[in-house]
Amino acid sequence: MGGIRNLESLFNPKTIAVVGASPTAGKISNIILKSLKHSSFSGKVYPINPRYKEVQGLKCFKSIADIGAQVDLAVFAIPAKTVPGALRDSEARLNVAVIVSGGFGETGEAGRALEKELKEIVSRTGVRVVGPNCMGIYDSFSGVDTFFIPEDRMKRPGKGGLSIVSQSGSFAVTAMDELAAEGAGAARIISYGNKADVNETDCLEFLIDDEQTTAVALYIESIEEGRRFVDVASRCAAKKPVMALKVGKSAVGMDAAHSHTGALAGRYEVYKAAFKKAGVIELSGYEDFLSACKALSVLKKTVAGRRVMIITDGGGMGVNIADACASLGLEVEPLPEKAKEQMSLLLPRFCSVSNPMDLTGSATDELFAEALEKTLDTDGYDLAIVAALWGPPALTDELPHLISEKAELADKPVIICSPGGVYTRAKTALFGKYGLPVFPSPESAARAASILCRGRRKA
Amino acid sequence: MGGIRNLESLFNPKTIAVVGASPTAGKISNIILKSLKHSSFSGKVYPINPRYKEVQGLKCFKSIADIGAQVDLAVFAIPAKTVPGALRDSEARLNVAVIVSGGFGETGEAGRALEKELKEIVSRTGVRVVGPNCMGIYDSFSGVDTFFIPEDRMKRPGKGGLSIVSQSGSFAVTAMDELAAEGAGAARIISYGNKADVNETDCLEFLIDDEQTTAVALYIESIEEGRRFVDVASRCAAKKPVMALKVGKSAVGMDAAHSHTGALAGRYEVYKAAFKKAGVIELSGYEDFLSACKALSVLKKTVAGRRVMIITDGGGMGVNIADACASLGLEVEPLPEKAKEQMSLLLPRFCSVSNPMDLTGSATDELFAEALEKTLDTDGYDLAIVAALWGPPALTDELPHLISEKAELADKPVIICSPGGVYTRAKTALFGKYGLPVFPSPESAARAASILCRGRRKA
Repeated sequence: MGGIRNLESLFNPKTIAVVGASPTAGKISNIILKSLKHSSFSGKVYPINPRYKEVQGLKCFKSIADIGAQVDLAVFAIPAKTVPGALRDSEARLNVAVIVSGGFGETGEAGRALEKELKEIVSRTGVRVVGPNCMGIYDSFSGVDTFFIPEDRMKRPGKGGLSIVSQSGSFAVTAMDELAAEGAGAARIISYGNKADVNETDCLEFLIDDEQTTAVALYIESIEEGRRFVDVASRCAAKKPVMALKVGKSAVGMDAAHSHTGALAGRYEVYKAAFKKAGVIELSGYEDFLSACKALSVLKKTVAGRRVMIITDGGGMGVNIADACASLGLEVEPLPEKAKEQMSLLLPRFCSVSNPMDLTGSATDELFAEALEKTLDTDGYDLAIVAALWGPPALTDELPHLISEKAELADKPVIICSPGGVYTRAKTALFGKYGLPVFPSPESAARAASILCRGRRKA
Repeated sequence: MGGIRNLESLFNPKTIAVVGASPTAGKISNIILKSLKHSSFSGKVYPINPRYKEVQGLKCFKSIADIGAQVDLAVFAIPAKTVPGALRDSEARLNVAVIVSGGFGETGEAGRALEKELKEIVSRTGVRVVGPNCMGIYDSFSGVDTFFIPEDRMKRPGKGGLSIVSQSGSFAVTAMDELAAEGAGAARIISYGNKADVNETDCLEFLIDDEQTTAVALYIESIEEGRRFVDVASRCAAKKPVMALKVGKSAVGMDAAHSHTGALAGRYEVYKAAFKKAGVIELSGYEDFLSACKALSVLKKTVAGRRVMIITDGGGMGVNIADACASLGLEVEPLPEKAKEQMSLLLPRFCSVSNPMDLTGSATDELFAEALEKTLDTDGYDLAIVAALWGPPALTDELPHLISEKAELADKPVIICSPGGVYTRAKTALFGKYGLPVFPSPESAARAASILCRGRRKA
């Protein structure tokens, strides 16, 4: 098996060839070439297409062999049936091929035959193949970007510590776009599709020692090398948080996964047990995946306990957060006496000096800050969820800054829960500016909190 | 008990007094007076405050008695300890009092005594009291609006068929603001707080025969009149969908609810059984509450079955939706032969002609429309979830219009699932324009679908 051999060429290539490069705007190869030209990628980019002498201002080559030098990474964006031939022609000169083309194992008999050809080339020559039927790689550090959605339709996240390894391209794209929209960063994002060669375990193995990656989120339809996965995931989880969403849990989901990437999803219970054994935090679905990614992208630090302090200016939202926390096995312990006394002196008498602490509509920026400082200063809590509803008239744009100061002082994670409409959504960026992750519902904030407590959720 | 007596004066008053009316901007009474002046409310508005002759250009009265006429509705925005006296002075001239002031049963001994005084006035005089410690009422039809958050911080929903009855003010405010931000309408929204008199059951009873209300969503911390609630809810649910979120499920949530509105939350299992008996659709949390409200606000029609067709242009998202549907007990049945044949002719060969149907990155507006028409045309499905990811370059702003045409043709509910970042979020309004409800995740779309299937979820 390939393991991590040559994967450095995938993430940190010095040379990239785009096979099938086209001058036609909107074509996949055209978008990829444009992305590479406009990204921070500092290596050489070679368009490959026998029909052109130049594409997008770059000299175009007839084939990879024609370049006359070793190529680290080649992206194949050509019809499925022409892929095996083109790969054979390049194999001696190529370290890694990203095959974005669809029409392989996920379709009919003919597609499966083509995929078998790819596998034969891999095992004969040692060239590594990512895909087919994938989006390839986005790397915020090296600037490699084979995700063929134009920038105006999908924003790329800035630099960050979170890496995503996803069987599904559309899933990875959507998560990336959401993270970018909320100012959260990422390190490497890999969509590996049908995994004719490179699979989730190979990528995860590479990320164990990757210094840029501080946390990994996996989207999995199927795992074939179960034993190796558990071994690799255990080693990775010992160094950084590893989270996984397994889809195709239901019978109908399994069928859908099969027609999607040809994956044989297998019994969900087996995956569940494998994740547990490896110390992988299991994610429950797309919403959970996003909450987890945002939490670990913005707040790098996890905590040893699971005692949550809840501060709110809306009592009902406090109750909702308490319920959501309890359902995930987080602890919402009563306020220690010292903090209770201190806060009783500070707060108007109709505030609830408790956990959740309800500052009511009389909340001010300063009351939020005081409440956060006094409660996190005790030994009672590992992290805080602050539900900042923007109704109270005294709240100003200073609130995010004040909260972030107290979070830093306490050196404990602070999560913002801020559901609401136009005004509230416009304030989200303010929290982001001060390094506070914002979640739009009690449930998403609680999910994020449970991830920061090292995913030790209720079974 | 009060039942629905006088509640017409709450929802459709001809005269409203604002007790404690103040010229000071930002004060609760000031905001309420401003809202009433700027809303569509067409009746008389009387500021009441012995300190002023005029407030906001309106003649100000010393007291309600001073007006010299019967007043349908009075809003009390004065300190808690002055409320019982002011109410006593007005009782003979007043039908309904909305007491927004806090500082009653939700605080200490003194507050509980004040609340007891209110109850005595109610039982002695028959004046109806909403609150205390509440936001009161927003009615998009009559224009009554006692929610004291300025318009710039909280948008009000336009006219719609959904009514919300909420013990928590902040919960109601946040939900309203989110609905308004997404273009969904509402009929009556009531925040009843400590319910010294008017409670959830009274409001629900009023809504049974309310023609403007086509669906009801309840946010409940506690119910005292259990038997009457089951009776009233059963009668309402026989005429229109009734949904309920019960919070304070966990021990910590129960405590939080108690300090919030003085509610004794009681055992969750009892509520669960009561909802089931009454035919009330139980909602699981804030996210579920919002999905349900949006679904029933935008699409008025529920369906008899629960067979869902899923159409997507991203395979992974299709798998996620299938899993989310299955987990709620929705059925994702295979494509009937006729539709399969028709679609096989239309779609590129690497599309998945199945359910979920994956149109892949080659999706066009027309393929989405065709797929929707051909699948909903069969007897196989009750509704459809369309996952429109905006990556595919051929998709244009015509997509929402085309989808809405086919939805209308089929006369079945169509739900849009459209997760993503900046570009995607900007397109949400386009779907809204054509009457299609949009959800930002597979889970929220599935929750909405299950509500439209009359809430018949897996236990």
